[in-house]
Amino acid sequence: MASVEFIKDLCTPALVIDLDKVKRNAEGMRERFQKLGVQLRPHMKTHKTLECADIMTGGSRRCIVVSTLAEASFYADNGYDDILYAYPLPFDKVERCAELSERLSLFHILVDNRLALQELKKRPLKQGKVWKVWMKLDCDNGRAGVPHFEPAALKLAQEVSDTAGVELTGIYAHCGNTYACQGEERIKAVAQETTAITLQFMEKLKAAGIHTPKSSIGSTPSCSHPVPDMAMLSEVHPGNYVFYDVQQSLIGSCRLEDVAVRVLTRVIGHYPHRNQLLVDCGWTALSHDGGGRLPTGYAIIEGHPELKLLSMTQEHGRVEPISGKLDFKQFPLGSLLTLMPYHACATAMMHPVYFVHSNGKIIGTWKPTRGW
Amino acid sequence: MASVEFIKDLCTPALVIDLDKVKRNAEGMRERFQKLGVQLRPHMKTHKTLECADIMTGGSRRCIVVSTLAEASFYADNGYDDILYAYPLPFDKVERCAELSERLSLFHILVDNRLALQELKKRPLKQGKVWKVWMKLDCDNGRAGVPHFEPAALKLAQEVSDTAGVELTGIYAHCGNTYACQGEERIKAVAQETTAITLQFMEKLKAAGIHTPKSSIGSTPSCSHPVPDMAMLSEVHPGNYVFYDVQQSLIGSCRLEDVAVRVLTRVIGHYPHRNQLLVDCGWTALSHDGGGRLPTGYAIIEGHPELKLLSMTQEHGRVEPISGKLDFKQFPLGSLLTLMPYHACATAMMHPVYFVHSNGKIIGTWKPTRGW
Repeated sequence: MASVEFIKDLCTPALVIDLDKVKRNAEGMRERFQKLGVQLRPHMKTHKTLECADIMTGGSRRCIVVSTLAEASFYADNGYDDILYAYPLPFDKVERCAELSERLSLFHILVDNRLALQELKKRPLKQGKVWKVWMKLDCDNGRAGVPHFEPAALKLAQEVSDTAGVELTGIYAHCGNTYACQGEERIKAVAQETTAITLQFMEKLKAAGIHTPKSSIGSTPSCSHPVPDMAMLSEVHPGNYVFYDVQQSLIGSCRLEDVAVRVLTRVIGHYPHRNQLLVDCGWTALSHDGGGRLPTGYAIIEGHPELKLLSMTQEHGRVEPISGKLDFKQFPLGSLLTLMPYHACATAMMHPVYFVHSNGKIIGTWKPTRGW
Repeated sequence: MASVEFIKDLCTPALVIDLDKVKRNAEGMRERFQKLGVQLRPHMKTHKTLECADIMTGGSRRCIVVSTLAEASFYADNGYDDILYAYPLPFDKVERCAELSERLSLFHILVDNRLALQELKKRPLKQGKVWKVWMKLDCDNGRAGVPHFEPAALKLAQEVSDTAGVELTGIYAHCGNTYACQGEERIKAVAQETTAITLQFMEKLKAAGIHTPKSSIGSTPSCSHPVPDMAMLSEVHPGNYVFYDVQQSLIGSCRLEDVAVRVLTRVIGHYPHRNQLLVDCGWTALSHDGGGRLPTGYAIIEGHPELKLLSMTQEHGRVEPISGKLDFKQFPLGSLLTLMPYHACATAMMHPVYFVHSNGKIIGTWKPTRGW
């Protein structure tokens, strides 16, 4: 595509990122945790780009979390260090983790079971290095992690701690259960609960004579509304906040005006006989995330609360009014509509390039890494 | 990743393609329409790779359909010609379409409204070329196209036909309404209806003295079970059939054993307290398509009809038994599970590389094009 100056001239569909909002969101999160005296270790999974990582780390290129080894390698190849691969150690990727551990100053991995520890023992690190291991604790989120209420948690921590060539670097919890919250008060309740459970576990470790320097919890909702006790944690690891999205605004993490990401789309058809128009945004440009359960369907159509993105196929989106007759004259063929995605992580994943702008003027493009 | 010989040794998640099934599916479709004397113009949208296009076109590299201009350019850059961009002409892409029309021997576009025709008039083709225009007819599918029952349909065809520099190349219909069918009989009923409406429209054109050489309908269900009247069409344009998927087997387009695509995933966690295991396949590797409404959730777990892929987050999948207690010993940490995707187009879209195998032995990798 010929390069264009303004996002309004981009071929659609296109993912556009408001750089000013990205910077504001990143700065807000940094300030919030500087005040609390807690290290922010931002998660890269939402965007997977170098440029956004630079913004989130304030240019330090240190202290990040990734969700895949492809991200870990991408950031390592580009001068990043102190990378936490926050994923239950996959046994097929031990060698790749070992190589990153040997190559970087700090590469951290995550375990939530004893067999993972056995895998690490089979592959001692060279150059006198030790495996930096965070133990994942499930603080009632119900995904990965040793359930905090099980004796196995303390036992695993003890075993990691006792294993030669392995260091128990920290305790890691993800409060993904904040995604079921609505409103600041509920978010704070979950944040408080996760923090309390994590800190209690740290106390248990101490009582058992297990040395564990660090603790970390995170999720965009909890880190957008931290509770004072979070000051007693070492780190937090939110990620989505740099973009935010409709889902986060419904949870109460942000205001709609904080959302930094949009999908631009154009009207490609008028179908008065069924009171619908078509846009050139299908699920390849937005994802199916959210299941279309918003009152406005799969997204919010900016400036048009009366419209609903009803359904999508691969490259088509069907738009209709929530009620009444569509005024087609308002939406000429070729005209732009701006979609605010339900889930920024899922939408960004669909795009090989993001168009970055300030007040509609294109400043650059960001290219994410993909794969595993 | 170090190159490996067998798919069982791939790092997961990984999209794997059974080359023998791909060839069989492609061959079956080619034979079916050779017998009927109808030109097969396969759709590239499902895979978007050169290698699979070669298989679908029987090596001719001619006569394909694409869903995006990125695909069109990708195939044109790699020696393909006679490309139909089967998408209502997007006004922001007229210049790119013009360039492809001037560059290729045959580049076809689609219109379903008068304004699109105006756009074409504003950009006459150079080198004495004419715009090759297919008119999209909506034969009760309800997406793009002029509704067949509206007088506007014949009027638009007349106008395209009468416009200098533009040729009415054909009438194009997509019977996406076959996706609501269950069973061969219902599929055939929709195929018959779409064919009949299209052929009736061709008759109307003839009666009105409008010369239109070609007619084309398509969808994987209808082309998997063609009705005899389809022999009177010029072309068909199915795409998904080269992979098939669980959805197509439920519709009745294929048998489950025809499905050529899988996502390999590994067990990464055992959580007996909630009777679940985690696998390393989230929505980044499978997509949310299908909404988890299968009795087995978001996919079929091959060889394990007792299991359900209950939910996914970005990189995690939660698996549990449909009923009863999970026998964790059957699914050791690190062991492989094989997912048959609900919708191959949506799943393939999530992968930057496909691993192609014959009987589990890796033969090569295919890299799809992305973007628009």
